[in-house]
Amino acid sequence: MSSSPFAARHIGPGDPEQAKMLAECGYGSLEALVEAAVPNAIRLTTGLDLPEPASETEATAELRRLAARNRPMTQMIGLGFHDTITPPVIRRNVLENPAWYTAYTPYQPEISQGRLEALLNFQTMVADLTGLKTANASLLDESTAVAEAVMLMRRQSKAKSQTVVLDAETMPQTIAVVRTRAEALGIDLDVRDLSAGLPEEFFGVVVQYPGASGVLREKGFYQRISEAANAAGALYTVAADLLALTLVEAPGEFGADIAAGTTQRFGLPLGFGGPHAGYMAVRAGLERSLPGRLVGVSVDADGAPAYRLALQTREQHIRREKATSNICTAQVLPAVLAAMYAVYHGPDGLKRIAERVHSLTTGLAAALRDGGVEVVHENYFDTLLVRVPGKAEQVISDARRFGVNLGRVDADHVRIACDEVTATDTLHRVLLAFELEANAKPGETAVLPGDLARSTDYLSHEVFHTHRSETAMLRYLRYLSDQDYALDRGMIPLGSCTMKLNATAEMEPISWPEFAGLHPFAPVEDSAGYRALVEQLSGWLAEVTGYDTVSLQPNAGSQGEFAGLLAITAYHRANGQPEREVCLIPSSAHGTNAASAVMAGMRVVVVACTSDGDVDLADLRKKAEEHRDTLSAIMITYPSTHGVYEHGIEEIASIVHEHGGQVYVDGANLNALLGLAKPGKFGGDVSHLNLHKTFCIPHGGGGPGVGPVAVRSHLAPYLPNHPLDGGAGPETGVGPITAAPYGSASILPISWAYVRMMGAEGLTNATKVAVLAANYVAARLRAHYPVLYAGQSGLVAHECILDLRGITKETGVTVDDVAKRLVDYGFHAPTMSFPVAGTLMVEPTESEDLAELDRFCDAMIAIRAEITAVAEGRWAVEQSPLRNAPHTAEVLTGDWDLPYDRKLAVYPAGVKAKGKYWPPVRRIDGARGDRNLVCSCPPLSSYEG
Amino acid sequence: MSSSPFAARHIGPGDPEQAKMLAECGYGSLEALVEAAVPNAIRLTTGLDLPEPASETEATAELRRLAARNRPMTQMIGLGFHDTITPPVIRRNVLENPAWYTAYTPYQPEISQGRLEALLNFQTMVADLTGLKTANASLLDESTAVAEAVMLMRRQSKAKSQTVVLDAETMPQTIAVVRTRAEALGIDLDVRDLSAGLPEEFFGVVVQYPGASGVLREKGFYQRISEAANAAGALYTVAADLLALTLVEAPGEFGADIAAGTTQRFGLPLGFGGPHAGYMAVRAGLERSLPGRLVGVSVDADGAPAYRLALQTREQHIRREKATSNICTAQVLPAVLAAMYAVYHGPDGLKRIAERVHSLTTGLAAALRDGGVEVVHENYFDTLLVRVPGKAEQVISDARRFGVNLGRVDADHVRIACDEVTATDTLHRVLLAFELEANAKPGETAVLPGDLARSTDYLSHEVFHTHRSETAMLRYLRYLSDQDYALDRGMIPLGSCTMKLNATAEMEPISWPEFAGLHPFAPVEDSAGYRALVEQLSGWLAEVTGYDTVSLQPNAGSQGEFAGLLAITAYHRANGQPEREVCLIPSSAHGTNAASAVMAGMRVVVVACTSDGDVDLADLRKKAEEHRDTLSAIMITYPSTHGVYEHGIEEIASIVHEHGGQVYVDGANLNALLGLAKPGKFGGDVSHLNLHKTFCIPHGGGGPGVGPVAVRSHLAPYLPNHPLDGGAGPETGVGPITAAPYGSASILPISWAYVRMMGAEGLTNATKVAVLAANYVAARLRAHYPVLYAGQSGLVAHECILDLRGITKETGVTVDDVAKRLVDYGFHAPTMSFPVAGTLMVEPTESEDLAELDRFCDAMIAIRAEITAVAEGRWAVEQSPLRNAPHTAEVLTGDWDLPYDRKLAVYPAGVKAKGKYWPPVRRIDGARGDRNLVCSCPPLSSYEG
Repeated sequence: MSSSPFAARHIGPGDPEQAKMLAECGYGSLEALVEAAVPNAIRLTTGLDLPEPASETEATAELRRLAARNRPMTQMIGLGFHDTITPPVIRRNVLENPAWYTAYTPYQPEISQGRLEALLNFQTMVADLTGLKTANASLLDESTAVAEAVMLMRRQSKAKSQTVVLDAETMPQTIAVVRTRAEALGIDLDVRDLSAGLPEEFFGVVVQYPGASGVLREKGFYQRISEAANAAGALYTVAADLLALTLVEAPGEFGADIAAGTTQRFGLPLGFGGPHAGYMAVRAGLERSLPGRLVGVSVDADGAPAYRLALQTREQHIRREKATSNICTAQVLPAVLAAMYAVYHGPDGLKRIAERVHSLTTGLAAALRDGGVEVVHENYFDTLLVRVPGKAEQVISDARRFGVNLGRVDADHVRIACDEVTATDTLHRVLLAFELEANAKPGETAVLPGDLARSTDYLSHEVFHTHRSETAMLRYLRYLSDQDYALDRGMIPLGSCTMKLNATAEMEPISWPEFAGLHPFAPVEDSAGYRALVEQLSGWLAEVTGYDTVSLQPNAGSQGEFAGLLAITAYHRANGQPEREVCLIPSSAHGTNAASAVMAGMRVVVVACTSDGDVDLADLRKKAEEHRDTLSAIMITYPSTHGVYEHGIEEIASIVHEHGGQVYVDGANLNALLGLAKPGKFGGDVSHLNLHKTFCIPHGGGGPGVGPVAVRSHLAPYLPNHPLDGGAGPETGVGPITAAPYGSASILPISWAYVRMMGAEGLTNATKVAVLAANYVAARLRAHYPVLYAGQSGLVAHECILDLRGITKETGVTVDDVAKRLVDYGFHAPTMSFPVAGTLMVEPTESEDLAELDRFCDAMIAIRAEITAVAEGRWAVEQSPLRNAPHTAEVLTGDWDLPYDRKLAVYPAGVKAKGKYWPPVRRIDGARGDRNLVCSCPPLSSYEG
Repeated sequence: MSSSPFAARHIGPGDPEQAKMLAECGYGSLEALVEAAVPNAIRLTTGLDLPEPASETEATAELRRLAARNRPMTQMIGLGFHDTITPPVIRRNVLENPAWYTAYTPYQPEISQGRLEALLNFQTMVADLTGLKTANASLLDESTAVAEAVMLMRRQSKAKSQTVVLDAETMPQTIAVVRTRAEALGIDLDVRDLSAGLPEEFFGVVVQYPGASGVLREKGFYQRISEAANAAGALYTVAADLLALTLVEAPGEFGADIAAGTTQRFGLPLGFGGPHAGYMAVRAGLERSLPGRLVGVSVDADGAPAYRLALQTREQHIRREKATSNICTAQVLPAVLAAMYAVYHGPDGLKRIAERVHSLTTGLAAALRDGGVEVVHENYFDTLLVRVPGKAEQVISDARRFGVNLGRVDADHVRIACDEVTATDTLHRVLLAFELEANAKPGETAVLPGDLARSTDYLSHEVFHTHRSETAMLRYLRYLSDQDYALDRGMIPLGSCTMKLNATAEMEPISWPEFAGLHPFAPVEDSAGYRALVEQLSGWLAEVTGYDTVSLQPNAGSQGEFAGLLAITAYHRANGQPEREVCLIPSSAHGTNAASAVMAGMRVVVVACTSDGDVDLADLRKKAEEHRDTLSAIMITYPSTHGVYEHGIEEIASIVHEHGGQVYVDGANLNALLGLAKPGKFGGDVSHLNLHKTFCIPHGGGGPGVGPVAVRSHLAPYLPNHPLDGGAGPETGVGPITAAPYGSASILPISWAYVRMMGAEGLTNATKVAVLAANYVAARLRAHYPVLYAGQSGLVAHECILDLRGITKETGVTVDDVAKRLVDYGFHAPTMSFPVAGTLMVEPTESEDLAELDRFCDAMIAIRAEITAVAEGRWAVEQSPLRNAPHTAEVLTGDWDLPYDRKLAVYPAGVKAKGKYWPPVRRIDGARGDRNLVCSCPPLSSYEG
């Protein structure tokens, strides 16, 4: 037992189990196994320098003390972050429910129908409200969504120009994020007051709607921009507030090609800036260019409607450097929350909320004007720009005395944003800050420009009309989650994705109001607890990775990669070597690496791999030599994407360094390194980590993640920073890459708690047991399936690749067949065909106990016997339980003319009737859905017959 | 829409749905329906006087302010209440999971296998630790468990004596609770120092183990009591601390017949005294006399092992005044938590916790003695009695300065109890209060009397050894809850049980540390928030019921009844009429009424009912006349147990009052009265309410409940009080009826929030819609099943009785068949054969929306068509889907020789494949299990084959 009581709960196998597993692997001790697996040269000789581990109770108490140092005020700062009410039934049954938050990305649609339906609701909600044809399943936040829109406009524009025009009323953080991206890609940014007209040439234009200052213009203003964009061959993006859209005209109605923004105010706690769900919707014709994930409707093997991710072929992991974006994820959990907020309130409820907010705002404006205070704009939705010459600081400071944070615009102006939690009493407190009598009352709702009133319906689908009571909502949430397979049911042995325990003690604090209620742009003194937590966590992450400085801003792994590559580019430029732009990427790399390199303005050169999966050192030397004057970096994953501790890692780093390049170590597989080796010490200059893999942030069904970037000191000056928060990064930084200074701040307590409770020994043991588990699975399965790669010792690292190519050739049974058959056995499939087509990659993680590992191995062995039956001609492959998998309960009730019986179909070897997971649909035909793209809720009639 | 936004979520049908339902009932408005249903004479003419309703957010904020007025200290007061750590994975996935907390009592075992297994774990845990053969599925708390043990000893003793002997070391609250009960029953209490020996004649003896002062004696002491009891023909109860039992000898090993106590320190938050789970275990031979519920193992129709409540025939609802106890409930949710605590820690983990607590205690004792402070006892487990002549108050007050509450014994002694959360730092703070240097460290573990070390194993069943990682525990909890049907899946149309929404906003606060962390005997100033909440809630309950004073102490409806009847008895005695002891009870009454009356020392006289279910006024007059000199009370339920607003209620009350009796109105059906009529105004002198029915405390799978007693002012002096809390009741009160002054205090925020968020109009509307829903169901089903009773207007109240007796006679199809077939249709069964054998009683409540009501009615109509098929001879009843119900998924995979097809079996009319609830077992043979009683976890081998 570890000295950390929590570690003994986090790590699945206890000592006696570990002994059995070691015996299977042929090693006498955990240390002996690890010594054989990990190259000696990189192995740490000292322990990690971390605080003594805390128990769950102690860590919770420490977090409560940190939380108590935060000050949740009444937040009226606005700028795209508004306080909102998460309906408790949704908070408890989604945000706090492991059935939702421990689920994986819905790549296996047959076991993900619940969250796919929730995401389809999300897409329908966004498409309806924006008046555009197709919305994706969420993006990271508003600012990156607009940045993605800019890139989409550039790809699709007929204009030759490299200029994008941004409305001066665009949120300042969005302008900054777009600037960071634009600089890397050579895009010119033209930020201007659009009422002064547009330039002659530009490829795209972005309008904030309503503007950052709250302003709404008449409809003609928005239409004229559309006309000008059309004339220039440019595209038109509207960054729209979804709540306002319940009252004002949909962007699709005045010619927008794209709408982008955030769904934060649909029930997503402020959380000091994130995680929230950004959105993007596009007009017909652009749907196949949408970045991010898209859920669509198809049919299963029985012809029943079924959901799955659509158009996956265009995603970065397949398109690599030709990808449209490096976005690999969505913000599924926040998107589900936002969609359920809309489902629960329905169109009438949303409109009621919007009208109430609007009427409080007009009431406040009237009271201010009555008191002689100038309200700048005549037309607005929920935000007022107030002119107080020379007195902005005073007003803001007075408002704080009454518990309210107002927005600082400049010395003469303050911004006041109303929201769902604003009450008459709130307005009174605001008025006191202006030294006015507290006598505001809700006002008129006629302050929208007359011609801007919304002309179209929205959310007319039945799902937005049938879950109006809490009881009905509760049941809908359970109905959906029951269709899905998540970690609370069994193992998710996904290679590279590290589906480990997301402990409750780690999760509980994120619901606390002191973490949930902070505005990202609130005065620094309000967030002392958050800032202390960020500093501690950054320090621990630097210690365990061997780097000097860590930025927690990137809110996804792809964002971390992008930030890391920007730091490299900035470093070369600062050294007077702007020509260094070649990024070497091994052929085995995850496609995101290449996509990120392109986004960072780099040119990708591929390095070959040897037949055993390692980087081909000869080819590396050749390419490095060839590009020695332009070499910027190598991106390498360690242990490799093949799940092997390559022995050449230090040599690889040396070669690249010798040729003037920087070494980017992708931290995707850090779960195999923690406590054993530090990338910052064995050659890395920069890494991004995945807190949602290695550090226990749950996958949330496909997001949110956090992808901190860690660098050695020479790159530290080039980390991200933020224009609205001086403390969020170096002055010399590359600008912000996310909307919020600390990205997805509100889920950082999860990783903080994990490190705090595991301690140095716990983290190291976790790594060792993860390696043991992978080798145990490899050892048990090797006789049944070839294990594709192994290190010099014959050991794998923390995952293993089972090669099915021979089997497929011999029998016709595919990786798909095995993956879907595993559902019948009660498992999520391993990773399919990555990094090698025709294989399955398995990462058991340290959290699965021996019983579950054996259940998996037994299932794989039983499946091998089924394959043998096909090979021996007892079953034709098309008639086999493999090809017909997964089997629903419904299929049992029909006629049965298959050569195996019903029992074998659904209760194959080892599967017990009690606790059986039933997939809600049979195998889904993805291609058919892609040919006939349907990405919003289908009418109920399509479910009949 | 109601003026309370929450009411619109709590009440299922919206306005358009209500209109449709009214049309079906033939009424034009809700008010018209209610006016026709409720007798004019009792109908309120004014609204309820309650605060304006708060929104969920506002109510939460108010509760946070109340919570902030509580002061959770380090609690070392002891007396059977010890701080403990609820493992977060258990808190989140049981206590905060609607799949567990919204479940009903497992009377329908086929859909309750998960919680039945959890309770069997509980029974096994208790039986193992106490070393006795059979444990029940929990009792209310330690003090009432001991009181039940006293009653059991009296029933089973061969001694003629009416004396029970209580160890002077028995917890003071237990002595007081036993005294309250004993006085009602004429039992003599002999509280004495047992080292001075036992009297010659007594029927039972109770020993606290360890004693209230912490003392442990040598084994011979405990054995000699057994010998003396045997000699006297008496029985021997040991009130044992389960954590201590991991180290010291099991009571069963030194001759105890009964063990009783609390499982609180197994992970159940202190919660200001409750709810916790009491326990009782008995030696072989006494199992059929155990009070409370008992889970046992039987088999289903396929011969597979299956759990169900055993020996139900001995329960109070059947045995009425011959029942062994009035206990109707268990504390299922706390019992599940305690059982899971044992499952998660296992025997080794529990022992480790106990050893650590013990060693901290010995370390503290050593440090005190080193500092010259006298520790009274040589042998103890976790509690020290410390002698500080004249300085107890000072030490206690100094300890509070360091954040610690110590126990006050008298002016010269303090009590210090260590527990799971005690740390070395805690000991240091304690020492500072004694002005000693803070230098304690964990001490020896050898301070148990040498011969008292435990000699037997415990928790050897596999379930206590296989869920050691958090991942495994999480999955076990999900595996169990997935087998059960609770409100989160669909309607539970139980007559009389009011399975309404348990809203999340009501539930969330009970987990807050400021409500969870309070010791019931902490100084008054620590619980200002709780006391304010109790006062507000009591006031609101008095207002809505029309009574003057409310006591929240009773922690179950049966306890409320008992308290109410005690008040009546005390009132008569105070009036010099001790001979008034006859309690009139209508023949239709719930059996608990009679059982409670007996417990309160009354004599039950049954009053007849008319053929339409009302009280037979002529018979009432006759009986009242007959017993005019001894008449104590009538117990009557209103609306009646037949679900009808009897028009004679005021006359009934008059008759009883005229004959000198008091009127007890059972509040079980208060959901049909709130806002429409007040029992305290239409004749009642006293009522108990069920906060777990009418006021949204969830049923928790069969407890906890809260059963406040409300009285008119003349009975107020005779409400319960508490010797350790002067504020908990009148000085002239009848004594405590539960261990804690405010009973199940920590769940009172649920009902507080419900009333606070509904407001007067919301509560009244809820009642009206509940009446509408029952009448809608009656209207839709009347053509298919006779509706048994109705009021003068032809309307039912809030529930309706469907009469199947004709159908059974004609076709052989029983209520059981219909109830089990409803499972196939995705429903929990209605109440079976209560109040009339051969009927089903349905209470839809206000929380079910029209879609769900229709789904139920459609299912009942479809089942009627299946019955017709039997009637017409298309199916033999034995071969029908009715008799074979429920159908598992497993049954589909076998051979099929039934006259209906598989699809009809599991997807009958209207049942969709997606979201289908699958029962884990087929119909269970309860009688077989009773013949061969197995009440602890069966070996795994019994599940094979």
